[in-house]
Amino acid sequence: MSSVVVESDVQLSLDSIRESLIRQEDTIVFSLIERAKFPLNSPAFEESRCLDSGNSSSLTEFFVREIETIQAKVGRYDNPEENPFFLDNIPQSVFPTHKYPQALYPKASSVNINKRLWDVYFKELLPSFVKPGDDGNYASTAASDLACLQAISRRIHYGKFVAEVKFSDAPHDYEPAICSKDTEALMKLLTFEKVEEMVKKRVEKKAETFGQEVKCVSGDEESEKNYKVDPSLVSRIYGEWLIPLTKDVEVEYLLRRLD
Amino acid sequence: MSSVVVESDVQLSLDSIRESLIRQEDTIVFSLIERAKFPLNSPAFEESRCLDSGNSSSLTEFFVREIETIQAKVGRYDNPEENPFFLDNIPQSVFPTHKYPQALYPKASSVNINKRLWDVYFKELLPSFVKPGDDGNYASTAASDLACLQAISRRIHYGKFVAEVKFSDAPHDYEPAICSKDTEALMKLLTFEKVEEMVKKRVEKKAETFGQEVKCVSGDEESEKNYKVDPSLVSRIYGEWLIPLTKDVEVEYLLRRLD
Repeated sequence: MSSVVVESDVQLSLDSIRESLIRQEDTIVFSLIERAKFPLNSPAFEESRCLDSGNSSSLTEFFVREIETIQAKVGRYDNPEENPFFLDNIPQSVFPTHKYPQALYPKASSVNINKRLWDVYFKELLPSFVKPGDDGNYASTAASDLACLQAISRRIHYGKFVAEVKFSDAPHDYEPAICSKDTEALMKLLTFEKVEEMVKKRVEKKAETFGQEVKCVSGDEESEKNYKVDPSLVSRIYGEWLIPLTKDVEVEYLLRRLD
Repeated sequence: MSSVVVESDVQLSLDSIRESLIRQEDTIVFSLIERAKFPLNSPAFEESRCLDSGNSSSLTEFFVREIETIQAKVGRYDNPEENPFFLDNIPQSVFPTHKYPQALYPKASSVNINKRLWDVYFKELLPSFVKPGDDGNYASTAASDLACLQAISRRIHYGKFVAEVKFSDAPHDYEPAICSKDTEALMKLLTFEKVEEMVKKRVEKKAETFGQEVKCVSGDEESEKNYKVDPSLVSRIYGEWLIPLTKDVEVEYLLRRLD
């Protein structure tokens, strides 16, 4: 069986993908540190009655739905790196937009696991790194949650680009498992434990570096370090959720790669 | 003349304000580093014809106006620390909202210099720290600009709280200059060059720390440092724009403090 070649303006390379994923780590760590300024503030993402429509929705869900609509109108989802959480029909951009190169296989490019990410984020990931409590700052909290969600979603769905490059580099390695829909075999082909350990170590170091209190007087560095987010937790967030979810995207993409 | 006492649920203190301003530095440095991922992308903030309404507006202005409306609907501007760029009439929140303590003097609390900040940001501040060029990523760029603008706006308008505490601590020091509308004398009373130098030094160190490339293997630190935003520029951004604009807010607030 011959593999289908994707028409592409740019040549994706594992190096450029790796570089992007490393830079995205900074964005994710920044967003977690910023979110940790606020306590859990669960009333923001629990169901509540919207005074306007009378419909039930959480404040955060209302916020994200509305913001995504505006972002679509300025062309955010023309970028194949961006995947919405709620938009089934993406509104057209109201400004002239950029033509992004189509590096993904069209029939697999729509993989979107943001519904799962939403659940995991609010039920497991978020409570793991913020303090419990409620300070009433729901608008700022929702904005911070959106920043985290979008940064993590971009990382996870970057798995589509990873999978495309890996497949293009060695289609025959993947074709049998794709044809037999062997998810487990695909997962095995996509797993490199050494690389995953290195990523977890690096994001821990990033959380140490970016989450420290920087003081003006040198010498203060010796005093006890107080991190804004526990670095070992950031490593755990990658190990338990971000890396596995990325691989899930890779598998889902590959399963449609010969359609 | 006796000073008017503001009814306040919380006692503002210079210490808590200082702490907040220091934490806000991290947010501002993060947002500048994130914005610097993209080149200037000036077509995003230059006037363009909106395909929807046919009106002329820049993509970024359209975006910020729409986002502020959504943010108002979840209660962002109930928080006296937040000041909109474009909303003349702030829409009511559609969810039950938090009662923020009113620590500011009501007749002075509406000071808002965001129009000036908008101009300064796009004409001077932004071109000083991003690469020239245009990569077409306007939606992401607009979102990054909004994050910078909101972080800087919060910092600058925190001057209202600074002024309120300074005034409350020593009203007689300020009353003569307020009564004679002597802006220059007020500016002198509010200027502490040593403190400003310390802030500039600290944000430079923060830009060094947060904008470095963090590598996994120790020992790499010795290699040449590549900063995502030039740390001396961040110091300059504080010295030339953020600190002076904050003091302008303080002066404008004090001028209305006896109304």
